[in-house]
Amino acid sequence: VDARTGLPVVGMVGAGQLARMTHQAAIPLGQSLRILADSADDGAALVAADVVVGDYHDLEVLRSFAAGCDVVTFDHEHVPQDLLLGLDGVDLQPSPSALRFAQDKQAMRERLGGLGVPCPRWAPVGSAADLESFAGQVGWPVVLKTATGGYDGKGVWIVEDSQTAAELLGSGARLIAEEKVTIVRELAAVVARSPSGQVAAWPVVETVQSEGICIEVLAPAPGLGAGLAARATALASSIAEELGVTGVLAVELFETADGLLVNELAMRPHNSAHWTIEGARTSQFEQHLRAVLDYPLGTTSPTAPVVVMANLLGGPDDVRPAALDDRVRSCLARWPDVKIHLYGKGFRPGRKVGHVTVLGEDLDDVRTRARAAARYLSEGDTA
Amino acid sequence: VDARTGLPVVGMVGAGQLARMTHQAAIPLGQSLRILADSADDGAALVAADVVVGDYHDLEVLRSFAAGCDVVTFDHEHVPQDLLLGLDGVDLQPSPSALRFAQDKQAMRERLGGLGVPCPRWAPVGSAADLESFAGQVGWPVVLKTATGGYDGKGVWIVEDSQTAAELLGSGARLIAEEKVTIVRELAAVVARSPSGQVAAWPVVETVQSEGICIEVLAPAPGLGAGLAARATALASSIAEELGVTGVLAVELFETADGLLVNELAMRPHNSAHWTIEGARTSQFEQHLRAVLDYPLGTTSPTAPVVVMANLLGGPDDVRPAALDDRVRSCLARWPDVKIHLYGKGFRPGRKVGHVTVLGEDLDDVRTRARAAARYLSEGDTA
Repeated sequence: VDARTGLPVVGMVGAGQLARMTHQAAIPLGQSLRILADSADDGAALVAADVVVGDYHDLEVLRSFAAGCDVVTFDHEHVPQDLLLGLDGVDLQPSPSALRFAQDKQAMRERLGGLGVPCPRWAPVGSAADLESFAGQVGWPVVLKTATGGYDGKGVWIVEDSQTAAELLGSGARLIAEEKVTIVRELAAVVARSPSGQVAAWPVVETVQSEGICIEVLAPAPGLGAGLAARATALASSIAEELGVTGVLAVELFETADGLLVNELAMRPHNSAHWTIEGARTSQFEQHLRAVLDYPLGTTSPTAPVVVMANLLGGPDDVRPAALDDRVRSCLARWPDVKIHLYGKGFRPGRKVGHVTVLGEDLDDVRTRARAAARYLSEGDTA
Repeated sequence: VDARTGLPVVGMVGAGQLARMTHQAAIPLGQSLRILADSADDGAALVAADVVVGDYHDLEVLRSFAAGCDVVTFDHEHVPQDLLLGLDGVDLQPSPSALRFAQDKQAMRERLGGLGVPCPRWAPVGSAADLESFAGQVGWPVVLKTATGGYDGKGVWIVEDSQTAAELLGSGARLIAEEKVTIVRELAAVVARSPSGQVAAWPVVETVQSEGICIEVLAPAPGLGAGLAARATALASSIAEELGVTGVLAVELFETADGLLVNELAMRPHNSAHWTIEGARTSQFEQHLRAVLDYPLGTTSPTAPVVVMANLLGGPDDVRPAALDDRVRSCLARWPDVKIHLYGKGFRPGRKVGHVTVLGEDLDDVRTRARAAARYLSEGDTA
């Protein structure tokens, strides 16, 4: 508890955009997020008062950081299990035993399989023979993933044969192979769960990917039948319960001709729910704080019939400071209702540096505006 | 410009709740508010990265603070004119020449009178004879105000005769007297204006006062005719233009049987527009930043048919830390859609320590919920 305010101190390991937006959500709750940053220039470190710069791979750094916190949560899933388990006495939300299933895709697949949750067919692969045997069952190409450490398309490869996977197979990284599913589209079901067991779900959304990176989220998922939407929400809720997840859980789903398959899990605020900042009565960032503190959860109803979020990715060239400010001005002039979110990060090609959110009535109109604004901010006017 | 982000640095003198909520709005714009605080424990200082603790009565403190800013704006109107005028080369928004009319009620009344803006009858009073002469024209009781330094009911007295005003009249404070107007209710017209001259207005609201302090804001003002609403907005817009206001301008109005009268002006984000955080597409805090930076202004349309903001005032007893956290939990459980805003301030009787906002369709329902939640947070369950 912060003695100056009487309100709890939530610590977040990692200082990227998720921590930045969580700090923003902490302010109205009377709180100030305590942040463990890699660098003083990290996006969240630029805007928060209580920042510790240190290496999250160092148990002493983690211990000292956690000492000032009522609860510790995460901007990413990279803190190794042995360090998490070494933080005895610290209230970690989600717990290491839950977080493990967001850190290790093999453990996740095994656990979800045990629960009867529909997933793509998969197998651990340690050799070319394993891979060929798996491909013999599901056919080529096969999706090869590192069991740990991947994100935003990193750590995922589509391989046509075992020869092209030779380098990966010899790298020493623990790998799993998954069938390459024919999908209708990708969806995300995002829920929050508190330690007391309360669960709240936002509407299921469609996520649009490009080269493994989410570029757009459409809320709610256009044309999704009530049955499939309910099924997706029920899947996410039951995964949260069975795995003991606390805080936000994002379940990335494949919609296929035969139904839903779980692709990935994330146990933290997630790109697929950035739209909730303006688009839902309670944002995922506020809800994550409420959940990890075991506060009652907030209403998740949407604030508009259609909400579209488009990510800003760094364009082919760096944006010089003056150009970025000019772009912001022009963007605000052209689209006065578009909500801009910049993360304080340098623009590097393909890097997520911000997002925009547009609310409205008509999907085509809202989506066109969101895309145009995002492209303008990312690349300047290339039309 | 912040070299790390390429985005502008806005400085705000004062670190109360207005600076706190402005910092919150700065984050998505890629900015981090630079704040001049009286104390490291001020509400905004608790949550922002770039805080200077210093005395705004000291020109050197102001100069050194301003040196890191692209533009300097204000959380309050207390910085003396001679210091503002001493900050040559600093981009002050609003300018000292505009701000003067928010600092000095006599100057404001003279200026608005010159513009033909309807105001209560008023006169400067330096003696009991002046006061009696004025009361002879408008009748007792009379409203006596200090020309400078008042806020939240401070610096305002209703006097029945000149004898009860004797102490005030002898205090040396410059005073003005105003007729005590018979009002239907109080309204506020809030606009933002940029240096380029763009003006954007939010819907006119009703403000409900108790003992000179705003306790509730109803947006839009219930039952306000389109003609009167347009008149209020036009008044605020023309005052902003004529006085050269930049940033947010709040015009507090009396609605009387004969029309509108201007009560007070504030040239900063204002309590009467806190509802815009959730209740309008662009909040007053984001708009203030956009305006002082001469960014294009954002859409001001409301996000719900009815929005009610209720202030949290410190109750009769101090709230101990544990009790405040308990109250927050219980409030969130009872009203899952109520948005809580806590300012990080100690609870002292009558002090504004936060607010709640409720959105909905039905005024009675929304207002009842907002009031109940605010009372619960302020006082605990006294029912």
